[in-house]
Amino acid sequence: MQYHHVSYEALKKFCIKVFQGYKFTEEEAQQITDVLLAADLSGIESHGVQRLIRYHKEITGGLVKIDAKPEIVKETPISAVIEGNDCMGQVLGVQAMNLAIKKAKEIGFGMVTVRNSNHYGIAAYYSKMAAEQGLIGMSMTNTEAIMVPTFGRKAMLGTNPIAFAMPANPTTYSFDAATTVVPRGKLEVYVKRGNGLPLGWALDENGHDSDDADRVLKNIIGKTGGGILPLGGSGDLTSGYKGYGFAMLCEIATAILSGGTTSNYIYKTPGRSNIAHCFIALDYGMFGDKAEIEANLSKYLQEVRDSDKAEGQDRIYIHGEKEAEAYDRVMSEGVYLNDKTYGEMQMIGEFTGASDLLPAYLD
Amino acid sequence: MQYHHVSYEALKKFCIKVFQGYKFTEEEAQQITDVLLAADLSGIESHGVQRLIRYHKEITGGLVKIDAKPEIVKETPISAVIEGNDCMGQVLGVQAMNLAIKKAKEIGFGMVTVRNSNHYGIAAYYSKMAAEQGLIGMSMTNTEAIMVPTFGRKAMLGTNPIAFAMPANPTTYSFDAATTVVPRGKLEVYVKRGNGLPLGWALDENGHDSDDADRVLKNIIGKTGGGILPLGGSGDLTSGYKGYGFAMLCEIATAILSGGTTSNYIYKTPGRSNIAHCFIALDYGMFGDKAEIEANLSKYLQEVRDSDKAEGQDRIYIHGEKEAEAYDRVMSEGVYLNDKTYGEMQMIGEFTGASDLLPAYLD
Repeated sequence: MQYHHVSYEALKKFCIKVFQGYKFTEEEAQQITDVLLAADLSGIESHGVQRLIRYHKEITGGLVKIDAKPEIVKETPISAVIEGNDCMGQVLGVQAMNLAIKKAKEIGFGMVTVRNSNHYGIAAYYSKMAAEQGLIGMSMTNTEAIMVPTFGRKAMLGTNPIAFAMPANPTTYSFDAATTVVPRGKLEVYVKRGNGLPLGWALDENGHDSDDADRVLKNIIGKTGGGILPLGGSGDLTSGYKGYGFAMLCEIATAILSGGTTSNYIYKTPGRSNIAHCFIALDYGMFGDKAEIEANLSKYLQEVRDSDKAEGQDRIYIHGEKEAEAYDRVMSEGVYLNDKTYGEMQMIGEFTGASDLLPAYLD
Repeated sequence: MQYHHVSYEALKKFCIKVFQGYKFTEEEAQQITDVLLAADLSGIESHGVQRLIRYHKEITGGLVKIDAKPEIVKETPISAVIEGNDCMGQVLGVQAMNLAIKKAKEIGFGMVTVRNSNHYGIAAYYSKMAAEQGLIGMSMTNTEAIMVPTFGRKAMLGTNPIAFAMPANPTTYSFDAATTVVPRGKLEVYVKRGNGLPLGWALDENGHDSDDADRVLKNIIGKTGGGILPLGGSGDLTSGYKGYGFAMLCEIATAILSGGTTSNYIYKTPGRSNIAHCFIALDYGMFGDKAEIEANLSKYLQEVRDSDKAEGQDRIYIHGEKEAEAYDRVMSEGVYLNDKTYGEMQMIGEFTGASDLLPAYLD
């Protein structure tokens, strides 16, 4: 597979025209593009423009209802529940986090849950929205069931990421982690390479540890048992029940507190995704002087950064640093695309009438 | 080592008299005892009456200031910061969670942070206090640094447990997890047995995986490097950076949002522990009908419980079930004590004038 770079600005214009081509409003098209390309800008290519084909299929296949409008079905000064009505996940996500931010600015805390949404992109996008406004932000989503609970052999929970962001210097603290050991994308890489999986990542259809990437992925696709392990691995020796618990927290915050659908029912109703999200914003000014709190956090993060390295290692990373460094790199070098993705973009450009803005290769 | 049982009620009376002997008020003595024995009732003996000797040393050594009073130094309708003034951790914990519960009942959400406290016992005690009042509860504490960040070799974060509880049927959902792979107590068990540690639990002083329980524990005690790994293990193959991130969330919620002290400074100032906690209560009635929400959670938990088991396994546990079952067992059979603990209780009974209530062996 060949790799090339395209300019971020050109790619952005193309994507906005693509989403307008599906009949999203200009504002919606910008929101969706912004979330999508935030992944590329963070060096998380698996969740970036590579996924355009996924959204194309979900939009043209009817999972995403372009004309639908979300409704706030319950609201208090510190909370809201949004019925997503199968709108685009990114549009719902931005709206819901903006509402949480508004509440946090008014009263200190805002928590907004969303039901009946679609895939919303990277969780960290939304938590960082709050951090950019000088707040703590959290964002969670459930996903199609792929995590097997401890001692099980059937996937009952999603990858269920939990994201948290808070202003700090020199880089916003931004943690975003699937509560599985690895996301599905990592298994796919091993299948393509033909390599054996590291033990502790996944289970076969009988619930045993497996290093057979091909078999595990086929089982996941065919829903014939097995799946990915919770953070902490299989059984209880390395405490996989903890990753399973963090995934359950995500499931409660998203599906249960929105009156929505748990991971084991996602993509089970024809024509609907039934994904649920949760967004939290918190003004830490209620706990003290904000500048002082930020300084204390930054000082501690620097102490961790500066602490003794393991033999053979030269750096301890703070969560969010790799992504911040990728941003500078992608902005100067362009977005890294493989030719398969570029081919999909050509097709999608023709479908949506955006071919004239298809970005040229920089190399 | 010999094991015996003593009656829970007799043990409770003894402990209350012990803490009154240190000059805590009757109410405080009851609170401390209740938290301490909640661990035994949950089958978590490592955190139960076995720890009486630890608290004895901290009280008589002056880390715990018996006559000190906590102060609320900042408060809003949804939050408070408590200066702990080195009071007993359990007394501060109960007071802080009660304040969070009060706020949640009034306005839907309460978040109370505490600085300059002492060891507070099991985190789940406090989250369950909220669940018993029909709320979601969360409880976190930082602890003396023992977790090595990914690619490091020096402990910079604590075991940093995160606890979450919510009413469900037939058992309250109660998750309580150190964000390290295992707690220090598990290493101590391996040292006593002379067994090799499972790889993925701990690092030696150079930052390499180690199976040498003795060496790891000596390094921890001597603060000569190494320590316990974050949930997810060493390096990035099984995503140890996620456990390190969850520990950081705990550190932010406790130390940073209380204006307190991060784990790497705990027990560093003579005569002070400098531990920080965070307590959250949330009324999920703001998201819908409470009975319906509880029913949806209970239904999902039952689906997980009933899902296919791995070959060789006959049960999938829901978090909190093992503890609830231990409660019934301990109430009928008594609390399980080893003779070392019993000897410490004899000494402490004499010191505090509570010997007359020393519980007799049931067997």
